[in-house]
Amino acid sequence: MINEETKKDVLPRLRKIEGQIKGIQKMVEKERYCIDIINQVTAAQRALDQVSLRVMRRHIESCVANAVKSDGGAPVVGELMETIYKFIR
Amino acid sequence: MINEETKKDVLPRLRKIEGQIKGIQKMVEKERYCIDIINQVTAAQRALDQVSLRVMRRHIESCVANAVKSDGGAPVVGELMETIYKFIR
Amino acid sequence: MINEETKKDVLPRLRKIEGQIKGIQKMVEKERYCIDIINQVTAAQRALDQVSLRVMRRHIESCVANAVKSDGGAPVVGELMETIYKFIR
Amino acid sequence: MINEETKKDVLPRLRKIEGQIKGIQKMVEKERYCIDIINQVTAAQRALDQVSLRVMRRHIESCVANAVKSDGGAPVVGELMETIYKFIR
Repeated sequence: MINEETKKDVLPRLRKIEGQIKGIQKMVEKERYCIDIINQVTAAQRALDQVSLRVMRRHIESCVANAVKSDGGAPVVGELMETIYKFIR
Repeated sequence: MINEETKKDVLPRLRKIEGQIKGIQKMVEKERYCIDIINQVTAAQRALDQVSLRVMRRHIESCVANAVKSDGGAPVVGELMETIYKFIR
Repeated sequence: MINEETKKDVLPRLRKIEGQIKGIQKMVEKERYCIDIINQVTAAQRALDQVSLRVMRRHIESCVANAVKSDGGAPVVGELMETIYKFIR
Repeated sequence: MINEETKKDVLPRLRKIEGQIKGIQKMVEKERYCIDIINQVTAAQRALDQVSLRVMRRHIESCVANAVKSDGGAPVVGELMETIYKFIR
């Protein structure tokens, strides 16, 4: 489960991303150059990657680790692989 | 350049994505299941893909098309390829 | 359409990628470390990105440019966007 | 470490991908339509995703699971996250 450390790492990132999304809205409203808009969208997506990777790391270190120790972890690892699969595409 | 049609298509998407980012913040605060958080982040990224693709389409139909007609468009196509490259990675 | 310049750029890349795929097969046969195998697969995928980007650039400079000049290019741009969409996911 | 089951799953996939890469070389040599070439490259990349995901699953079920049981697994999980990060971008 998410812990305080991950929360403290991830929440400021999400707030910054919220600001990026608002900024992109303003760029669209002001009809800024398309390429600049797309690059800002890409920057927000890369910042979201970092959020996912941090939550995933915490998940592996807590839930996956616990499941592995108690029952081998097959269903939890299956669920993780599906999530990675969705994440990469 | 961005036109009214693209604005009307893209702005509601961006507002919805802003809502998704706020929702993810709440999920983190309430310590929701890591996998559910990651899947929501992935959903926001896929929605951002749609924004980029729509702006890119408009860009090709306006700026790239105009440049191609006037001077062959080499620098504009080069800039587009760099943007696609950043977008895919 | 593909021209000689793109061919000369892209064919050696594809031959190198073929070698990379054969190398990955040997790594699997010899039971090399999983992480090393995955990193080699990733390297082959990044090399394939470069092939796609080069063919796409040529496509935009030839087919898309010609279509834009003759009839505005809407169907060709639509087809390109669909291809970019498949490419990114 | 890679086991017989993963080998049997992954090797035929890699041989098929090798064939796809050879096929793309022929498409380039015969100057086939750019969009068809790009779509074939994308298909090979998606097939490579499946190879990585299968090797990664095996890695988590063997090395990561063992490390978690013996010493908590921090360095192995760190290495895995880095690999996922390279894989997604």
